Amino acid sequence: MSAPPPPQPSRDRSLQARTDALLRRLVRRDAATALRKVVRRSRPEDIAAAMEHLTWAEQRRLFSVLDDPDFAATLLAHLSDESAREVSRALSRDTLADLLDRMEPDDATDVVAVLPESMREEVLSELTEEQEEVRELLSWPPDTAGGIMSPLVFTMPQTATAAETIRALQDRHDEVETIYYVYVVDEDDRLVGVTSLRSLIVATPDARLSEIMTRDVIHVRPTEDQEEVARFVARYDLLALPVVDEGGHVLGVVTVDDVVDVIREEAAEDMMLMAGVTEGPERGVMQQSSSRAGWLVATLVGGILVAEIIAGFKTALEQVAVLAGFIPVIIGMGGNVGIQSATLAVRGLATGRVHLGGALTFVWHEARVSMLLGLAFAALLGIYGTLRYRQEPLLGLSVGASIFLAISLAGVLGASIPLLLERVGVDPAIATGPFVTTLVDLLGIVVYFNVALILLGL
Amino acid sequence: MSAPPPPQPSRDRSLQARTDALLRRLVRRDAATALRKVVRRSRPEDIAAAMEHLTWAEQRRLFSVLDDPDFAATLLAHLSDESAREVSRALSRDTLADLLDRMEPDDATDVVAVLPESMREEVLSELTEEQEEVRELLSWPPDTAGGIMSPLVFTMPQTATAAETIRALQDRHDEVETIYYVYVVDEDDRLVGVTSLRSLIVATPDARLSEIMTRDVIHVRPTEDQEEVARFVARYDLLALPVVDEGGHVLGVVTVDDVVDVIREEAAEDMMLMAGVTEGPERGVMQQSSSRAGWLVATLVGGILVAEIIAGFKTALEQVAVLAGFIPVIIGMGGNVGIQSATLAVRGLATGRVHLGGALTFVWHEARVSMLLGLAFAALLGIYGTLRYRQEPLLGLSVGASIFLAISLAGVLGASIPLLLERVGVDPAIATGPFVTTLVDLLGIVVYFNVALILLGL
Repeated sequence: MSAPPPPQPSRDRSLQARTDALLRRLVRRDAATALRKVVRRSRPEDIAAAMEHLTWAEQRRLFSVLDDPDFAATLLAHLSDESAREVSRALSRDTLADLLDRMEPDDATDVVAVLPESMREEVLSELTEEQEEVRELLSWPPDTAGGIMSPLVFTMPQTATAAETIRALQDRHDEVETIYYVYVVDEDDRLVGVTSLRSLIVATPDARLSEIMTRDVIHVRPTEDQEEVARFVARYDLLALPVVDEGGHVLGVVTVDDVVDVIREEAAEDMMLMAGVTEGPERGVMQQSSSRAGWLVATLVGGILVAEIIAGFKTALEQVAVLAGFIPVIIGMGGNVGIQSATLAVRGLATGRVHLGGALTFVWHEARVSMLLGLAFAALLGIYGTLRYRQEPLLGLSVGASIFLAISLAGVLGASIPLLLERVGVDPAIATGPFVTTLVDLLGIVVYFNVALILLGL
Repeated sequence: MSAPPPPQPSRDRSLQARTDALLRRLVRRDAATALRKVVRRSRPEDIAAAMEHLTWAEQRRLFSVLDDPDFAATLLAHLSDESAREVSRALSRDTLADLLDRMEPDDATDVVAVLPESMREEVLSELTEEQEEVRELLSWPPDTAGGIMSPLVFTMPQTATAAETIRALQDRHDEVETIYYVYVVDEDDRLVGVTSLRSLIVATPDARLSEIMTRDVIHVRPTEDQEEVARFVARYDLLALPVVDEGGHVLGVVTVDDVVDVIREEAAEDMMLMAGVTEGPERGVMQQSSSRAGWLVATLVGGILVAEIIAGFKTALEQVAVLAGFIPVIIGMGGNVGIQSATLAVRGLATGRVHLGGALTFVWHEARVSMLLGLAFAALLGIYGTLRYRQEPLLGLSVGASIFLAISLAGVLGASIPLLLERVGVDPAIATGPFVTTLVDLLGIVVYFNVALILLGL
């Protein structure tokens, strides 16, 4: 073999951006030969990432020039759900079934799960026997341990020796998702221990698995939420986590690479939900506008309610027009504190730092923080209002008192609403959006005008 | 050996919450014996997670009852930065150095890095020779590949055989961070390939590494940002990633468990930054209030500016008081669209879907989405305004035109500001907070009153 090439340079972001631009240009020019050349010297994961910047039509065109089915299968497994659906729809049933046959069953299941209902049955019936696990995996909800596990798990009886186990791994390494952990079962096929390839390698060859295994196996039920699975893998630094049914039988294994994807997805999802956006920037203008409009309708309804409340104080406004000037700052400060508290609650719930058992402690903490902040900013804005409008000596006091109340209420609401949503089983990330801000706006305005009416004697 | 215990039940959240509550109660009662009993039947990772719900004083008290130094070392390595600092400060230099000696060098480095400057040198001088890598690791910024890597990397010459490599792994498995990948080097010690323990196990024993290795090794430079490292590990489903200097020499390895932590931290950090909170709910009331106040000061300054602008339109307000009623909805809708676009930009930059090379495409896309949304909501609010205030026939038109302009501007600003910040090297996540909302508030108000003045002829 000739001398190896020197290590390649680190793939940096600007290089990635150039590859993306090159691919896009070639796809638009329909330059199939040049495209194939670029693809051939790239990794399928990189082409998959670049494809996310293309339109559906361009993605399908690029996919159609691929001539290596294994490359195409890996690429398809690495696409986002939406892209995988759009690309798959354009393929013939045969071609798609062939690509799915080349994937790990858990990856194949992810692709089948995003297909339109009508296609799913047709494609499933085309799969070979080896892929019949796909149908079983589809029966678990996609965001549970069962939905992200691979059924290709390696188990050995506890009476086997280290040498026998290594031999079995050598024979069956192609059929299992990970060979780095060996799950040990008893005569009734129930999980009783775990050992690692690392331990096997250093154990004496005739040591029995029952002697070298760890008995306290961290595992999950198939119905466990994928966020909880991710928390386990992160906390115990695991490479894989077995999925076990009520009877103690191993159904499958969730590997760390899938968990990495889950963590990335869930974080993006939480952040997007908090801002009321559900579709990424790669979606079409109409599609994205309509997905964002729902959240804005809530803001609009809240805004009209606020407008009605303010209209009710028409006479007061005609007497002291500068009252209107403080509306934005009062609802702005209240809204911000509410979002801060809600963000801490949402993140805390996601990481496990905040939990329903400690709800009162958390809300009381946020109440004290927001009252302290309310006091500080009430003083600042109160002084500004008093000095600025000396002809209305009590205007500063009204503004100060209102800001204190608005900020305090916002902190308590922002902290509690996500916890309440979690309690009733709704994703708390939606709380920081329209719920908290609209409620805080309404309350802030009601407080402000009522305080002003009383103090200014309008 | 007696019959193995049946598999333990899944640790669910409510169980976790009960353990947390029990620990807290015992710590507050100072029940050292009972505490030790609970700790002894728990994993260090679980105690570390539970400790994050305790105050500093309680954390120190709990830590002081631990009697197994290996348990204590693992626990300390799994604490958050702040907790690790607070617990370490209370330990004698000897005890701390002993605990650090029991950790992997990368974990020890993380703990030393969070110590107060004054303690760091003292503790470093107490470490044994085996831990002298810690000092080297400290020289890399903590959020780079160098800062999160472990120097305990397993390399073999390309002329070694599979059998020799497995023997070497058996001898040295204790001294390396991961044995699942073997990095292959040439005679000048430069990285030329990689192979996995999986391939070694199935290879013929006398196969040379140069024959079974993969030559195209995905690797990073030590100065690479940790987010980029995480992106690589996620994209290529790696268990570890070698860190290589300019000369091609392997400096260390970043393992997937550290990457999982990075992804979780970065996601939390982005979300918190977007809401202007830098400290979690576990911090003291004063500390958290002051960290949140900075962001609110920006809102306050923006709010006072808005108040001044509105005060400038005092006469118009005295004539048409209901003008004030639409202030909240105009800045609210603008602010929300701005936050939506900014969130898409921040998440897109974090995941690589949006990049500076494609900035114009992204901003133009957001501009079209926000103009479409602006048109739709201008129509809705315009119709409401016209029907509600028939005595001012042009009020609805003013409100509609303003909301269209405010939403369109907000979308463009929200999409561009994070990209501009990324361009100048500032974390774009701070953009969705005060920058975008304050700017959008100001512009929205200026547009609204000017449109109203013209159309209503005030």
